[in-house]
Amino acid sequence: MRRLKIAVAYDGTDFHGWQVQPGRATIQRALQEILSGIDGKPVLVAGSGRTDAGVHARAQVAAFTLENGIPPVNLRKAMNRLLPPSIRVLSVEEVGESFHPRFDAVAKTYEYRIFRGEVCDPFTWRYVHHHPYPLNTELMEATAPLLEGEHDFSAFAASDPKEDRGRSKVRRIFSSQLAVSPDWLVYRVRGSGFLKHMVRNIAGFLLETGKGNAGPELLLEMLTPGCAVKAGCRVPAKGLTLVSVEYDRGAETFC
Amino acid sequence: MRRLKIAVAYDGTDFHGWQVQPGRATIQRALQEILSGIDGKPVLVAGSGRTDAGVHARAQVAAFTLENGIPPVNLRKAMNRLLPPSIRVLSVEEVGESFHPRFDAVAKTYEYRIFRGEVCDPFTWRYVHHHPYPLNTELMEATAPLLEGEHDFSAFAASDPKEDRGRSKVRRIFSSQLAVSPDWLVYRVRGSGFLKHMVRNIAGFLLETGKGNAGPELLLEMLTPGCAVKAGCRVPAKGLTLVSVEYDRGAETFC
Repeated sequence: MRRLKIAVAYDGTDFHGWQVQPGRATIQRALQEILSGIDGKPVLVAGSGRTDAGVHARAQVAAFTLENGIPPVNLRKAMNRLLPPSIRVLSVEEVGESFHPRFDAVAKTYEYRIFRGEVCDPFTWRYVHHHPYPLNTELMEATAPLLEGEHDFSAFAASDPKEDRGRSKVRRIFSSQLAVSPDWLVYRVRGSGFLKHMVRNIAGFLLETGKGNAGPELLLEMLTPGCAVKAGCRVPAKGLTLVSVEYDRGAETFC
Repeated sequence: MRRLKIAVAYDGTDFHGWQVQPGRATIQRALQEILSGIDGKPVLVAGSGRTDAGVHARAQVAAFTLENGIPPVNLRKAMNRLLPPSIRVLSVEEVGESFHPRFDAVAKTYEYRIFRGEVCDPFTWRYVHHHPYPLNTELMEATAPLLEGEHDFSAFAASDPKEDRGRSKVRRIFSSQLAVSPDWLVYRVRGSGFLKHMVRNIAGFLLETGKGNAGPELLLEMLTPGCAVKAGCRVPAKGLTLVSVEYDRGAETFC
């Protein structure tokens, strides 16, 4: 039995997220069906984490165990022939049998893109949140790095029964920066891990900051353990992209 | 009655081209339905020319006559609210009542994009022709400019009963250039006008040139009036984009 690690890019628009759900098109399901067909028996694909419905990935990382001895390059080609063009396998490599894309990940990078121009062109609307209204971008830019460091992100997490069973909501954010240009706001965050809806809640908080409804003081309050305030302005999934997942051997980036 | 000129961008993937066809989603139909709703009576939208099913536009130009006195900026906003996100009205302006987007056009620019990398990412596959095979790009690059000048393009035109009634197939090409980079070939052509399928037949000819099946000599033969050879390797519509349409007052570019 071989353990294989793959990097996968996807346009999340037409999928109900990463995780298998009965009767719904998901990325994990598409990959599992194709690999099970190739191996002639059920293949379980583990991802570095779930992405929500509508969220995109430039290089999600996943792994699975396969009996078939097909060389990695041929497997990549075979998978891409069978997958829809909205899912692409970027690379396939052999890894140790203990490799787990979620537990072995040391960092992940997400990007949230906001388009501020009047008209959002038909070639990018799937990948951005359109917000053509005035914003205090200087305050947003100054607030973003305050998330860096180790914090309890309970206030930015969706209530999730699976994650709520006494699990720590402390995460380390290595960098949190907003790039500002005339028509674009691109929020890029790299951290040890992220809670459910965390990046969209943070991007929503920054947007509210730009509108004058939030700011650094409220943010620091919300990062204090036991804070009763919850982030309530999650931005739409379509603006979010999982950019890369890093392991000890170096970054898995394809952007 | 007012005459209005609009610039429209569209992702042609899900449309059966520009022109109204019974029971099919087309760009012209979508625009006409919305404008007829706004004006309370049928509105006919004339385009600078038809684009085929699957062809995209960064700035197609169209015009129509409207009774409703709505200001141009508000009309643009109203249309974009009602149109699907795959069609965007970029601008609306008042023009003289004799303006016709087809007959008044002095030049058009098209771009044909070929992606040569191994894996075509899920965010661009709709807008490119994927050709990850060896090509003599130097010969393609040298052949492209030979199309410049005034020529009879019969050999590169689809047989079209409407265009075949003794109409001239002579067109003037102002520029015809292939930009080469490691993963991309971008063919850009600007001319006085184009025959049905002409750009896709030219791009297909250049691709055949790269494969060693055609070249400058055959091209010069095919541009000779009365030539019996017909271009037979039309490339797929999805790689083609109408970039701009120019009128005497200057270029309508939004790229």
